[in-house]
Amino acid sequence: MSDTLNVTPLKASSTAKKGEFLRLGTIEHLDVTKMPGIVQLVDGMKNMAFSARDLARAADIYDRMLRDTECGVILTLAGSLNSAGLKKIFVDMIRNNMVDAIVSTGANIVDQDFFEALGFKHYIAEDRLKSGLFDGELRDCALDRIYDTLIDEEELRICDETTQKIFNELELRPHSSRELVHALGKYLDENGGPKCADSIVYEAYKRDIPIFCPAFSDCSAGFGLVAHYVSRGETRMSWDGGKDFYEITQLKIKNPTTGLLMIGGGVPKNFTQDIVVCAEVLGHDAPMHKYAIQVTVADVRDGALSSSTLKEASSWGKVDVVWEQMVFSEATLALPLIAGYGYHKGGWKNRTAKHWNKVFEDATVGAA
Amino acid sequence: MSDTLNVTPLKASSTAKKGEFLRLGTIEHLDVTKMPGIVQLVDGMKNMAFSARDLARAADIYDRMLRDTECGVILTLAGSLNSAGLKKIFVDMIRNNMVDAIVSTGANIVDQDFFEALGFKHYIAEDRLKSGLFDGELRDCALDRIYDTLIDEEELRICDETTQKIFNELELRPHSSRELVHALGKYLDENGGPKCADSIVYEAYKRDIPIFCPAFSDCSAGFGLVAHYVSRGETRMSWDGGKDFYEITQLKIKNPTTGLLMIGGGVPKNFTQDIVVCAEVLGHDAPMHKYAIQVTVADVRDGALSSSTLKEASSWGKVDVVWEQMVFSEATLALPLIAGYGYHKGGWKNRTAKHWNKVFEDATVGAA
Amino acid sequence: MSDTLNVTPLKASSTAKKGEFLRLGTIEHLDVTKMPGIVQLVDGMKNMAFSARDLARAADIYDRMLRDTECGVILTLAGSLNSAGLKKIFVDMIRNNMVDAIVSTGANIVDQDFFEALGFKHYIAEDRLKSGLFDGELRDCALDRIYDTLIDEEELRICDETTQKIFNELELRPHSSRELVHALGKYLDENGGPKCADSIVYEAYKRDIPIFCPAFSDCSAGFGLVAHYVSRGETRMSWDGGKDFYEITQLKIKNPTTGLLMIGGGVPKNFTQDIVVCAEVLGHDAPMHKYAIQVTVADVRDGALSSSTLKEASSWGKVDVVWEQMVFSEATLALPLIAGYGYHKGGWKNRTAKHWNKVFEDATVGAA
Amino acid sequence: MSDTLNVTPLKASSTAKKGEFLRLGTIEHLDVTKMPGIVQLVDGMKNMAFSARDLARAADIYDRMLRDTECGVILTLAGSLNSAGLKKIFVDMIRNNMVDAIVSTGANIVDQDFFEALGFKHYIAEDRLKSGLFDGELRDCALDRIYDTLIDEEELRICDETTQKIFNELELRPHSSRELVHALGKYLDENGGPKCADSIVYEAYKRDIPIFCPAFSDCSAGFGLVAHYVSRGETRMSWDGGKDFYEITQLKIKNPTTGLLMIGGGVPKNFTQDIVVCAEVLGHDAPMHKYAIQVTVADVRDGALSSSTLKEASSWGKVDVVWEQMVFSEATLALPLIAGYGYHKGGWKNRTAKHWNKVFEDATVGAA
Repeated sequence: MSDTLNVTPLKASSTAKKGEFLRLGTIEHLDVTKMPGIVQLVDGMKNMAFSARDLARAADIYDRMLRDTECGVILTLAGSLNSAGLKKIFVDMIRNNMVDAIVSTGANIVDQDFFEALGFKHYIAEDRLKSGLFDGELRDCALDRIYDTLIDEEELRICDETTQKIFNELELRPHSSRELVHALGKYLDENGGPKCADSIVYEAYKRDIPIFCPAFSDCSAGFGLVAHYVSRGETRMSWDGGKDFYEITQLKIKNPTTGLLMIGGGVPKNFTQDIVVCAEVLGHDAPMHKYAIQVTVADVRDGALSSSTLKEASSWGKVDVVWEQMVFSEATLALPLIAGYGYHKGGWKNRTAKHWNKVFEDATVGAA
Repeated sequence: MSDTLNVTPLKASSTAKKGEFLRLGTIEHLDVTKMPGIVQLVDGMKNMAFSARDLARAADIYDRMLRDTECGVILTLAGSLNSAGLKKIFVDMIRNNMVDAIVSTGANIVDQDFFEALGFKHYIAEDRLKSGLFDGELRDCALDRIYDTLIDEEELRICDETTQKIFNELELRPHSSRELVHALGKYLDENGGPKCADSIVYEAYKRDIPIFCPAFSDCSAGFGLVAHYVSRGETRMSWDGGKDFYEITQLKIKNPTTGLLMIGGGVPKNFTQDIVVCAEVLGHDAPMHKYAIQVTVADVRDGALSSSTLKEASSWGKVDVVWEQMVFSEATLALPLIAGYGYHKGGWKNRTAKHWNKVFEDATVGAA
Repeated sequence: MSDTLNVTPLKASSTAKKGEFLRLGTIEHLDVTKMPGIVQLVDGMKNMAFSARDLARAADIYDRMLRDTECGVILTLAGSLNSAGLKKIFVDMIRNNMVDAIVSTGANIVDQDFFEALGFKHYIAEDRLKSGLFDGELRDCALDRIYDTLIDEEELRICDETTQKIFNELELRPHSSRELVHALGKYLDENGGPKCADSIVYEAYKRDIPIFCPAFSDCSAGFGLVAHYVSRGETRMSWDGGKDFYEITQLKIKNPTTGLLMIGGGVPKNFTQDIVVCAEVLGHDAPMHKYAIQVTVADVRDGALSSSTLKEASSWGKVDVVWEQMVFSEATLALPLIAGYGYHKGGWKNRTAKHWNKVFEDATVGAA
Repeated sequence: MSDTLNVTPLKASSTAKKGEFLRLGTIEHLDVTKMPGIVQLVDGMKNMAFSARDLARAADIYDRMLRDTECGVILTLAGSLNSAGLKKIFVDMIRNNMVDAIVSTGANIVDQDFFEALGFKHYIAEDRLKSGLFDGELRDCALDRIYDTLIDEEELRICDETTQKIFNELELRPHSSRELVHALGKYLDENGGPKCADSIVYEAYKRDIPIFCPAFSDCSAGFGLVAHYVSRGETRMSWDGGKDFYEITQLKIKNPTTGLLMIGGGVPKNFTQDIVVCAEVLGHDAPMHKYAIQVTVADVRDGALSSSTLKEASSWGKVDVVWEQMVFSEATLALPLIAGYGYHKGGWKNRTAKHWNKVFEDATVGAA
């Protein structure tokens, strides 16, 4: 076994068609900081019905969270958000002190954000590709499809391989995903910064904002991890998923007032809600999350956690019910309005950065 | 910090009402092995339209998977399935050699199956509780709600604590979630077996069927892990999430023909699909999953992985398109028909148990 | 303008491919009367969670409706149900005295049931056709697509034309849709009966079961109506939609205890729920619908009537809340279980046929 | 039988609580004409993914429709849109020549728009009322609930009764729903105009824009119709639903280029799509609808018409596929963006009003 990944997809035989598939150009990220009209639109929705009213209330709760200077704001990300053009919104939230920690699927952070920071792009797929009937042809071109978006698998393999190289340089001990994502940010910083205008991993690194990926092996970095394990055998670092839960719970203990802005559900939602219970289990009297917003299209009737209401979470002692709001919408429509509202209302201007990564700098597991 | 968890929920002050809330009795698990009529029903759906036809095709694909003796069958679980009464179906699949590995959310395995194996139950909630308006009262009674189902949080804390005790006894090294779930099974075996008729964790332990939980800290065992970490400091075991991905990929490499039966999406779906790519990345020419079925109500239009079609997965080189079928249904309606069909058609009778846990017994990471 | 429809679709130029598209054969209707195992399956779902429990309760409510001999059972149909293979279930309900009136979209009754009674069939479409990418080719073959099902447009035009011929023979006065559907049944009866094994229109005609289509012009018969109007000018019959509402309200007034089995939502759902209010508006103290079941996948969060809960209907005074149940499922999965349960439990065996069409035989509008 | 409706709901015994339920105030309608920032937001969504990109394309297609001066724009409405605060958007479309005909559920036109024109309002419901657990109390207060919105049933009865009075004055012949809605507009005009700032029925009346309600008896006016029938017996007017289909088809024949903006699905969607086929059936070579947009959350997998894709409609010869776009969103979020974009781009400024109601002024049925 060689020390590196096999970065050339075995099936990528037909590069001729590739250009044709990619001809519609790249995904461009929305910049809500230039759209002050969002405030008027959202305010107009306050006395409507259905999703409009819910969205207006969610935007108001986000603004309240930002004005509550005690409150630590945790953003959770699930679904293909960064590949969909929402990345700059998250970066602007980081830059403007509108978020204190991020809990995400690995894909949003590594396969999409770090991937773009390495200089790669996501591409607009033609409408007909959504049918799935051309996925064999895409496979031949080493193009991966996310519904209506394409990724160049050859570029993704370079992303995988880069994570392996970074992991190869780390201390030979268990690391939380927060530490591993931090290492990705450090890599960008030491290699000339991101090769794109905006990077979540890089901006969070510079501003000491922790990013947790509680299912970290389920992404591009998972390939890097496995390749590292295979090449190094027992003399290796590891991803310690239990440490993720330990660390984020410490944040809750140190900063009891918290608010959640959840995009999609999945593991990030549940994992973040659970830190209240975990703090209690460790003997701390942590209050429930004071604010909670979730944007989702998941249907509550399937009983899954992604769709479970924030009220339901209150039965578990996770989320308080005074300031909670679910918004039934696909994220690309709702998030620009909620985040744009929070930005242009300016409630964040009086916040002090929490620099939560610094909490862990001298921390020793077990010191609590 | 004491060595053990704080197992009494701080808020559980009102036990008087508890009995009233639990008066509708317990969730009972469906036994499809006694329902041969399912075959006729499913066969009758083959020439209908919409979900009925899709379900009949999915059931047929499952039967084909079982008849293909080369094929390793991997079951993925997301959503609250065991608390919903589907547990015995999974146990019967294990007992009858209808599944070779399981990839699941932690909740299904620890909070629900292992929890019942410790002698606890899930309860039927009254219809009005679905509204969320009584979640404050439930909280006062230390009752957790999953849509229309209740869990006694005091019992769940005992489950949390039991996992801590088990982790406290393990070797001080990184463990895959497979090893940790195996330890739960061993615990049951050494303590008189499960205190309920059917347990996935126990049956899988007895039959060498690996169970992976790729987001293992996101469940009851996560609390056990954190409590272990806090009490033991640096002299502790850890959950090594990267090892999960390494191990399951080894299964794909050793048994190239695979089929997936996916209930819900989430991390289990993506993680399991990715092992094809991981094998390739490690230099092995692993074929795509030959068979794939997914039961879900997730809407493809949100672009998330839970809802992404199996055709889309083929663009990533994960799933072959000849024998794939998605079924649009909540799992409690579709799974009894698919699994019951597979059982009563008897295709599994000619299968040899793969005992995949034995693959890892002498395995050293990096030996591949 | 000639007296008849232009029955040859203008675009149907390519009949060569037609056979190829139709090669997968015809939709076959499920016969639940031969599947007694359904009872055991549904009973097993009673103590599960989510849709399974809801479905079991819905089936129980249907059985209760049938055992309540005072109760008039009204079936409402929306969605492409008969083209999907559910037709025989409805016919068996008629034959076994399990339904007293039907309120439906026109398509289910005319384009699908009457169409098959004329000797035509629905066809199974290949999976790839669902993508929509071949709809241009289908158009060239005069094949109409309903998701995964095909209809021969040339045959559908004959259905349109047949309705025109029937309308041409009617009295020159306003007719309710009930009278018009009755005329279709009479036509079948006078022309040798249906050319298929089972016909809703025919069986309902023979058993005096009224069928209302409150948006009757929105179906194949709408073309027949317009062609009749165009060819006859002012000397013509008409479809009097107000008379529909008048007539069905009379049924509620004469038989105050009613139960609803609603498949899908749409106009049939709302129209039927409204008869309670209409009776009250006319000065009668009609009770709310005593039993109500709805099978639907519509999402309550869009605020539309199709998805509105049966509890919401109680605020309007339409549906009582003691025996109501919504089931979140696509109809082809849920209806066979609900109807099969009702059939095999045999509660209908003590019912006396209501022959509601006879209520109108001597009725004069305004006589109430 | 008296000549008028029983306008006092029998169950409305508890008016004391009514004020409490209505304390959150009234639904207010969004005014997108004052929000030019919508253009920038929608333009920024063009190169994103998922619903954002789809919405941007839909908005662009609407703009193209308006710039195509040959094109007759038909708006279809299903779902509770006017009660949700979208009414002013539709009125602004009428005032600014952005729509030529409307096909709607009766509820949007009569129960909601005409209702408000009579001086009544819709009310914001508290969040807890969505649970359905207070619907009995609402019933006691004669308050009707639409998800998160309340209507005063006593006011709605006045609306019902007003339609009866209007119908009592009409010529004793069959009327299309277009004629009946026109009569409602005329009533408003002759009685001092609407008692609210904006009325669809009134503005459409003043500008000769036809409004069709193809299931007209399924709304407040249905009660008026039945009361008229009961009080007048055979000497009465009637709603002739077949004439609706005849009339709207005449529009297609006279103005072959058409575009559809569909909000929700239901009967309005299907009915309007069908006019292409109806024109052909009558021997005219009408082109398919050239442009088509649909905003819906309905799931395509249930096979119902509401959710069927616009590509599927092309197999039926109804909708061309070059300029079609579905948007997966609840209407209150998507419509303001689409309509606001169309308004502020100003494509409508070069359109000439079509005054389609004038087509019917001298028309005699059968004259085609």
